[in-house]
Amino acid sequence: MDQPDPRTTDLGFARVDVDRARRTGDPEVVYGAGKTPAQVVEILRTLHQRHPERAVLATRLDDEARARVAAELGAHVDDQARAATLGPLPHPRGTVAVVSAGTSDLPVAAEAALAVRVHGAGVDLITDVGVAGLHRLLGVTDRLEAADCLVVVAGMEGALPSVVGGLVGVPLVAVPTSVGYGASLGGLAALLAMLNSCAPGVSVVNIDNGYGAGVHAARVARQSVPR
Amino acid sequence: MDQPDPRTTDLGFARVDVDRARRTGDPEVVYGAGKTPAQVVEILRTLHQRHPERAVLATRLDDEARARVAAELGAHVDDQARAATLGPLPHPRGTVAVVSAGTSDLPVAAEAALAVRVHGAGVDLITDVGVAGLHRLLGVTDRLEAADCLVVVAGMEGALPSVVGGLVGVPLVAVPTSVGYGASLGGLAALLAMLNSCAPGVSVVNIDNGYGAGVHAARVARQSVPR
Amino acid sequence: MDQPDPRTTDLGFARVDVDRARRTGDPEVVYGAGKTPAQVVEILRTLHQRHPERAVLATRLDDEARARVAAELGAHVDDQARAATLGPLPHPRGTVAVVSAGTSDLPVAAEAALAVRVHGAGVDLITDVGVAGLHRLLGVTDRLEAADCLVVVAGMEGALPSVVGGLVGVPLVAVPTSVGYGASLGGLAALLAMLNSCAPGVSVVNIDNGYGAGVHAARVARQSVPR
Amino acid sequence: MDQPDPRTTDLGFARVDVDRARRTGDPEVVYGAGKTPAQVVEILRTLHQRHPERAVLATRLDDEARARVAAELGAHVDDQARAATLGPLPHPRGTVAVVSAGTSDLPVAAEAALAVRVHGAGVDLITDVGVAGLHRLLGVTDRLEAADCLVVVAGMEGALPSVVGGLVGVPLVAVPTSVGYGASLGGLAALLAMLNSCAPGVSVVNIDNGYGAGVHAARVARQSVPR
Amino acid sequence: MDQPDPRTTDLGFARVDVDRARRTGDPEVVYGAGKTPAQVVEILRTLHQRHPERAVLATRLDDEARARVAAELGAHVDDQARAATLGPLPHPRGTVAVVSAGTSDLPVAAEAALAVRVHGAGVDLITDVGVAGLHRLLGVTDRLEAADCLVVVAGMEGALPSVVGGLVGVPLVAVPTSVGYGASLGGLAALLAMLNSCAPGVSVVNIDNGYGAGVHAARVARQSVPR
Amino acid sequence: MDQPDPRTTDLGFARVDVDRARRTGDPEVVYGAGKTPAQVVEILRTLHQRHPERAVLATRLDDEARARVAAELGAHVDDQARAATLGPLPHPRGTVAVVSAGTSDLPVAAEAALAVRVHGAGVDLITDVGVAGLHRLLGVTDRLEAADCLVVVAGMEGALPSVVGGLVGVPLVAVPTSVGYGASLGGLAALLAMLNSCAPGVSVVNIDNGYGAGVHAARVARQSVPR
Amino acid sequence: MDQPDPRTTDLGFARVDVDRARRTGDPEVVYGAGKTPAQVVEILRTLHQRHPERAVLATRLDDEARARVAAELGAHVDDQARAATLGPLPHPRGTVAVVSAGTSDLPVAAEAALAVRVHGAGVDLITDVGVAGLHRLLGVTDRLEAADCLVVVAGMEGALPSVVGGLVGVPLVAVPTSVGYGASLGGLAALLAMLNSCAPGVSVVNIDNGYGAGVHAARVARQSVPR
Amino acid sequence: MDQPDPRTTDLGFARVDVDRARRTGDPEVVYGAGKTPAQVVEILRTLHQRHPERAVLATRLDDEARARVAAELGAHVDDQARAATLGPLPHPRGTVAVVSAGTSDLPVAAEAALAVRVHGAGVDLITDVGVAGLHRLLGVTDRLEAADCLVVVAGMEGALPSVVGGLVGVPLVAVPTSVGYGASLGGLAALLAMLNSCAPGVSVVNIDNGYGAGVHAARVARQSVPR
Repeated sequence: MDQPDPRTTDLGFARVDVDRARRTGDPEVVYGAGKTPAQVVEILRTLHQRHPERAVLATRLDDEARARVAAELGAHVDDQARAATLGPLPHPRGTVAVVSAGTSDLPVAAEAALAVRVHGAGVDLITDVGVAGLHRLLGVTDRLEAADCLVVVAGMEGALPSVVGGLVGVPLVAVPTSVGYGASLGGLAALLAMLNSCAPGVSVVNIDNGYGAGVHAARVARQSVPR
Repeated sequence: MDQPDPRTTDLGFARVDVDRARRTGDPEVVYGAGKTPAQVVEILRTLHQRHPERAVLATRLDDEARARVAAELGAHVDDQARAATLGPLPHPRGTVAVVSAGTSDLPVAAEAALAVRVHGAGVDLITDVGVAGLHRLLGVTDRLEAADCLVVVAGMEGALPSVVGGLVGVPLVAVPTSVGYGASLGGLAALLAMLNSCAPGVSVVNIDNGYGAGVHAARVARQSVPR
Repeated sequence: MDQPDPRTTDLGFARVDVDRARRTGDPEVVYGAGKTPAQVVEILRTLHQRHPERAVLATRLDDEARARVAAELGAHVDDQARAATLGPLPHPRGTVAVVSAGTSDLPVAAEAALAVRVHGAGVDLITDVGVAGLHRLLGVTDRLEAADCLVVVAGMEGALPSVVGGLVGVPLVAVPTSVGYGASLGGLAALLAMLNSCAPGVSVVNIDNGYGAGVHAARVARQSVPR
Repeated sequence: MDQPDPRTTDLGFARVDVDRARRTGDPEVVYGAGKTPAQVVEILRTLHQRHPERAVLATRLDDEARARVAAELGAHVDDQARAATLGPLPHPRGTVAVVSAGTSDLPVAAEAALAVRVHGAGVDLITDVGVAGLHRLLGVTDRLEAADCLVVVAGMEGALPSVVGGLVGVPLVAVPTSVGYGASLGGLAALLAMLNSCAPGVSVVNIDNGYGAGVHAARVARQSVPR
Repeated sequence: MDQPDPRTTDLGFARVDVDRARRTGDPEVVYGAGKTPAQVVEILRTLHQRHPERAVLATRLDDEARARVAAELGAHVDDQARAATLGPLPHPRGTVAVVSAGTSDLPVAAEAALAVRVHGAGVDLITDVGVAGLHRLLGVTDRLEAADCLVVVAGMEGALPSVVGGLVGVPLVAVPTSVGYGASLGGLAALLAMLNSCAPGVSVVNIDNGYGAGVHAARVARQSVPR
Repeated sequence: MDQPDPRTTDLGFARVDVDRARRTGDPEVVYGAGKTPAQVVEILRTLHQRHPERAVLATRLDDEARARVAAELGAHVDDQARAATLGPLPHPRGTVAVVSAGTSDLPVAAEAALAVRVHGAGVDLITDVGVAGLHRLLGVTDRLEAADCLVVVAGMEGALPSVVGGLVGVPLVAVPTSVGYGASLGGLAALLAMLNSCAPGVSVVNIDNGYGAGVHAARVARQSVPR
Repeated sequence: MDQPDPRTTDLGFARVDVDRARRTGDPEVVYGAGKTPAQVVEILRTLHQRHPERAVLATRLDDEARARVAAELGAHVDDQARAATLGPLPHPRGTVAVVSAGTSDLPVAAEAALAVRVHGAGVDLITDVGVAGLHRLLGVTDRLEAADCLVVVAGMEGALPSVVGGLVGVPLVAVPTSVGYGASLGGLAALLAMLNSCAPGVSVVNIDNGYGAGVHAARVARQSVPR
Repeated sequence: MDQPDPRTTDLGFARVDVDRARRTGDPEVVYGAGKTPAQVVEILRTLHQRHPERAVLATRLDDEARARVAAELGAHVDDQARAATLGPLPHPRGTVAVVSAGTSDLPVAAEAALAVRVHGAGVDLITDVGVAGLHRLLGVTDRLEAADCLVVVAGMEGALPSVVGGLVGVPLVAVPTSVGYGASLGGLAALLAMLNSCAPGVSVVNIDNGYGAGVHAARVARQSVPR
């Protein structure tokens, strides 16, 4: 019943927005949760054909989807991030430091890091610097200050963004993770902590939303470096 | 019992952190809630004496506090933002568009705008562009695209950041407000909506935290413009 | 121990209300969740025998239940809506536009659309018009205005009903879906957003309750067209 | 900084949307909460001057605001609804039955009733028919069936919409109220109950939102009666 | 390390309280959730040996546990209640009417009914009398009035206890069930509704706690009939 | 518009249900919250005139309302319960032990005790027996066992009903109070604790609802004593 | 009706537990919230007369109560803690370091410090060491390590206990405060953060419960020092 | 990219903190949730090699992980605690009484007990002393008083810490468990109850966090006994 729209491509099971790059300057992205591996393959293929010169990102891919996009499309798979890219990554402009608290937060940090790269900035990944062992965090202050934007990932009590935000004045996006149990309430405890950070200028995204934080940070970092 | 610390000044009722500018590049700020007007006056005076060459900001000031800082210190008062500044505002680098949905959201937007100015960026204030009357928002798309960072303020259902984030690719910080009643739960409904925005790259601060959003946005805008 | 009641039929595992049509003018409906495929077949068969001249609806059917009602009863199955009908659909009176935000919201929209048809109105299905890509929604304003009632389906931040409700004055029922993760709280974020809509006249049903919205909208649309 | 827009009137403290009637067919409305009596007077006056031929509605007015709009503008005040109208009410098309459970729910029911009238439908007000005394409700079944739409208002356990919705098949909008204490959670208990109604087709608005329910119901009732 | 206590029997994996009957006049009960079928068999056997003259109850038994207590101990199994008894049921004193709203509430109602019998009262089971079809409930008013205590079981909006409590003055215990989805929040909506009942004297137990309601009601009914 | 109904008396501001005693065997009750002192006086007077031979109860009366019902009607006032009665109390049948944990819980316990008396049973009031000082509670076990029903009132952690319910087998209604702060969440902590009591047969009413518990308990106690 | 109990003293409006010191080794304490100044005076006087040789503590006293206990009893008043003591403080055994994050947390820290002293330990008060300025906290590590127990007080995101708990292995009790706004939810955000601390061995008390933390810490510190 | 740090050992999938014992005096611990059995084996082996003279603890191990650490490393497995230790346990200093309410709480109590032993204190395990059968708890008062610290474990209504805390003055850490259903909200009901305990000095850890309570208690007990 709907009219065809030149700004979308209809695959039957999905209308792919092939106009977003023009509107916002960002690449196309496939959110894999709830899609079959075959659907992910088909959407990635379509987007890549429209824009072979730049990378397309697919996130939240299960094992089978990651295997199939690699085998059928030659996509580059990042198992820790549970994601894949197809097409050449852009040349990085500016740097985002992706900082994570514990080992269990790594998948979210990896998703953020990949999103940063696909959206055009470079990444400095700093892991295992949780607040219960401050010496490690204090040892990387120079790297924090050198970044154009920070993505700070933590679960449980979500204290890391406050500590980092007190050390340096770089724009900071905090990502709460669902790591924890009981009164962590699936990540709500960390989310609330980050929203109440006593360090000024901390902004926050949804629980486990490494992708969203990466997009925000890449936009900030990109425009911090003159072309 | 504590040792004196050159990085703080002890007023008896508060230890003022006079080292923050060096650490993070940002000005000093006084959070006025829970402080007496006399305390606000005293802290503002102390901070101003240490750094007379740049502005100090005081937020969440009641009527009496605003009157006294104006009378006793010659501070500049912003009644809508319920805030005051003392000392010269910095020359603006970059531009933050502060966008608000409804009339009741104006105090939070005004606090954000003032924080942006004090933290060194310029402001383009765009008000009354709630999603229930799209024509007004669509009419200012050029101004949204011209900004280096966006602060988007909305209460009730908190839909405005999603709509704005779908129009332009500028870094965006969303501020939920406590405007609403019943199932708005004091702003939690808007906060949750913004955290779940379908537009990528939307980051969020605490309910009514115009100040925090302004700090984040000013940092982003400042570094987007080469010195 | 209970007395037999002419207004119900006792199947042993359920008492089927065969009087509802007389009382409310609506068809019989089987809610399939928690029932075995055999029970669904049996109830559908019974209701159909009592009223062979009009359609009976069964919702929330798993794959096996849908397969069996098709094979054993010749029911018409709607896989996207996860539902089935048995008996002729009524002639449509009035039109309900069922509007959905994203691909993941389609099952709920499809359930709503089928409920509308079974309850006697016609459907105009408008999909993939999420608020992050306004151009698509603005392109279908004429169809929104032409409807007698709107069912607007959205997950995540649940902003679509506010935007639609600001464009046209048609009665509008909003359906939050459980699409999302983290702070979407299983659809509560979208539900709260819709209850706080700044567009007047938006009413809301339970999360994922396409059926309930369809019933409400069909009643409104039916009576909007003189017989 | 904003361009003037012929569709709004700028009063300094508010931009009044004077275009809504054209867009949605509904009258202008002033939400009085958070506005001073002087502001309410000014907005009402402005809207009335633009459209003297039809009523303007102001809701959530405190005692002083109601007194002033009566004295200064000759507005018609409804103390129970805490609201006022200025200009002639439209000729009613169709009927909305506004049904309320207890005495404490009356202000919300009255606001709904007035909103119905201002939005162009007639009202049949049925009060004190709470579920703990069914005989009264059963005595008014004919009036429920005669309505084109129902607004059902209840606090505490919010059971009334389920019982009414089981009696008749008329479109029904439920309004939870904040009447109650303790585990009523400010009306959330009633809101949740109504969202989970076992009667099909019940839709719900925000706690105490008589106005919103009235708008929805009036639209339904108006279009149920051929011009 | 603990001293042996004549009032308990130690099975290694559990200390069985064999003194409760003396202290409270009630039979022993085994809560089966989280226990292996072998443990349930062993505890039932032990309790039965201590008190062969009266029934022991085991609740929340899965299919295997029910099969084994029947096969190995000759226990009487109630599949709907997911429970079993071993030993002769007591002669009933007084009557508890167990009233349930919908088919899905039956397991909880059955557990309540069996608990009533084991705790010494008689049962009148009244099912499928949900509030959306009042005629059925009104048809059993005599049976409600004839009972010494009422157990009223309902999920979704939990309205049935309010309606029943308005019809008769018999002591009433309400049981919310987890039947529902979305905003039913696993039964919390029904629980809150029942706690806010406008009918006086309604008391409430935990979600799905048919057993607890049955114990309360049996105690009330037993003592209502002189020995 | 409504028809007069012999079962109610219309006072203009309220329809008084004068039929409840016939239907449920209980006296009339006025819930004073949200009513003016003048309204309370008028309703009490009306109910008393219809049934001068038995007591009418008014609860939740502020200081002025209590003073006026005493002065104008000669009502008996209970300041601790914040309630009043008019007319002779019934001869007590059976005994309810009202047990409270701390001094701050006394107003709720007093309301429960008065409701018990008005609804026809006798009261044994046992106060200050919180679980942090068990010796006092263990010293009154005989009085607990002698009662026909127990009302157990506690705030904070709400542990008292579990301890009492483990000591005796008398029917028990628990009343959580709003006594506490912080994580007591206005009484929700105590409410949840009571709903999860490990002692079987504990039923619960709303926070601070001494009246409701008293009605339930009085009904139980009354029928436990043969006429 | 109750029997006199030698372990309590009945003041009419309260039964004072004069046996607690024997049972738990701790002094008597008066919780002033909800008590009149006259009642506080009377209870303090009574407790002091029974045990003139040791201090009695009264917490949560408003201005008038503090003034009256000073004037009428000669009590020692601590305005910041909003508390008072009567009688000689015990000789301190062991040391509790009371550590607080921000100026607004001082009243809770002061209550904790006074409770520690009254319960027999010494205090080292360390203030204004919030995580957004780590240099101050790192400068007092020696004092943290020298303590026998730590009480760590923080509002907003509640991160301080995690950082302190990562620095030293001293037993630590965390106290969330209600300092914050919006998503701090009255201190729940800080409470949840502390319960999810990644530093092992952190235990937590209720929001603003400086007293409870002080009691726990004093007990730990006292027994850490051999008599 | 990170620099090597002598205080950690990098296993590729985790950086093991081998410096914690020096910093806090506590042993290394492996949190097994979310780790593969092979990873648990590898981390345990590494930590043991660094400190063969003292025990390393691994918690939250599933059946396979426990089997493999026993078979491959000769670790000592505690099936009830779902944990394992490798290396000699330290000589116990002081005693922690671990007290649990019901059989279902035993795994959490066992984890606490093992953590106490590994962290250097002795354990007195007291089980099945729930508040619904006080006689058992009162029978062990001597053992409670003899302990240097108490860990009190309970699910459902979480009342046990309040009762224990009223009996003795020993430092007490409460552990809520997730035992329960419905309104227990996964252990939140018990958690809230414990935070609101009327017994002074009760501190609380996260739901099911036997380990954290054990660490706190062992630290307290160790330092209570002079070396």
